Amino acid sequence: MAVEEGMIGISLTNSAPLVVPTHGAEMLLGTNPISLGAPTRRNPAFLLDMATSVVPRGKIEVYDRNCHQMPVGWAVDENGYDCQNPGQVLKNLIERVGGGILPLGGRGEEFSGYKGYGLSLMVDILCGVLSGAGYGPNVDDVHGNPEAGKTVFPNVGHFFAVIDIARFMPVEGFAARLDDYIDRLKGSRKAFDQETVFIHGEKEWARTLIHREVGIPIGENVLGTLRRIATEAGVEPPVVQPAREQCEFAPSKQGEADA
Amino acid sequence: MAVEEGMIGISLTNSAPLVVPTHGAEMLLGTNPISLGAPTRRNPAFLLDMATSVVPRGKIEVYDRNCHQMPVGWAVDENGYDCQNPGQVLKNLIERVGGGILPLGGRGEEFSGYKGYGLSLMVDILCGVLSGAGYGPNVDDVHGNPEAGKTVFPNVGHFFAVIDIARFMPVEGFAARLDDYIDRLKGSRKAFDQETVFIHGEKEWARTLIHREVGIPIGENVLGTLRRIATEAGVEPPVVQPAREQCEFAPSKQGEADA
Repeated sequence: MAVEEGMIGISLTNSAPLVVPTHGAEMLLGTNPISLGAPTRRNPAFLLDMATSVVPRGKIEVYDRNCHQMPVGWAVDENGYDCQNPGQVLKNLIERVGGGILPLGGRGEEFSGYKGYGLSLMVDILCGVLSGAGYGPNVDDVHGNPEAGKTVFPNVGHFFAVIDIARFMPVEGFAARLDDYIDRLKGSRKAFDQETVFIHGEKEWARTLIHREVGIPIGENVLGTLRRIATEAGVEPPVVQPAREQCEFAPSKQGEADA
Repeated sequence: MAVEEGMIGISLTNSAPLVVPTHGAEMLLGTNPISLGAPTRRNPAFLLDMATSVVPRGKIEVYDRNCHQMPVGWAVDENGYDCQNPGQVLKNLIERVGGGILPLGGRGEEFSGYKGYGLSLMVDILCGVLSGAGYGPNVDDVHGNPEAGKTVFPNVGHFFAVIDIARFMPVEGFAARLDDYIDRLKGSRKAFDQETVFIHGEKEWARTLIHREVGIPIGENVLGTLRRIATEAGVEPPVVQPAREQCEFAPSKQGEADA
């Protein structure tokens, strides 16, 4: 919305605790994502949207379903040891026995995991501590009325900010400078095994154009949740149509793991 | 300064290009650090100050001086291959033949290097593109007057923001909530090989208290630069006193590599 108005938009949220702090073995932090959008003219807008953990929970769920071993550096067990078994990590997350997903930068200090941990804390300070919502493990202090059989939501908080570019320079000039920067990045020499340097938001924009044509694939889990909430709220459940054509993106669970 | 006024302070800067974008092989981005401070009452203030690259340039210089091999995931050569030779990476940086330091998250996508790359771009959009300063490789378009024999500076830009906590909640309440969060983190179960979960700014605060007593150790390189600038500016060079007592922190080069 900010980008469409020629502004820079910033959006942060905290989330349920799944991530262990550096040197810790308890899940105390959310995947606490950072999002920033900035307008361009010729290229798709710059749209960063990233978890501050090394991977989102959904990616671990995909590895579990596919019986794949995770790389060292994604998660730890309840004693803080590297854990490559996605099923064990998910079981620990659900039962809250400890361990969890690692912050961006991985375990310990060798690849600066304390930076991802710090970014996660930064997001939580702005979203949770400052807003009066939950923070850290308190995000799990659920709102709602479980006794009445209603869906409960974690006590998350959000942070939104907008920067009016026109106060600094003409939006056209800003967009031209950002386009120039993007062109420079995309035109740069590629690594030996790569053909494209991507800009954040570029892949998602291509996907958006496809989804506008063929509709948005929704996974079974998401659809089930939507139907349940609709029933609880006494409104019509969403109508689902079969995809109009085969889409190159995985139609069900994969899409949930892309955050 | 913001924290002392009971506010949240945010400070970003872009910097000379040393970092390669994900899937790229050219140094096009700075180490573009992110800094955020937030006030507490009982604990040292939260003070995040981190490069968006996996390591700062200084750390590679330390490895080079000590003849150590770097871990896979810190840097790539001019073709985008993992490079563990710190001397080769530094030579490539100076001669600008390509390769460079990797963004936070490392090479490729397995550990989400595109997140560090995105954070670096985010910082540069706010510091360089928005301000009218240089951005990306243009930061190296130096200012100053080299012909006159003066020191030249890269064309960097900065971004500063302050959030007045009192507009959201009483500062005392904010500080109490952040102290509670910090206590929860520091009191949490440690990984099998660790004794302390640190908060960002905690180590630096302990170091500050020592430096206030014994003075600030300055490396030979920094001292030489200060002397040269002082001479150029026609002011008295800094006076250096021998340390009043031995300090547990490395006295010379190590300190430069901690960013």
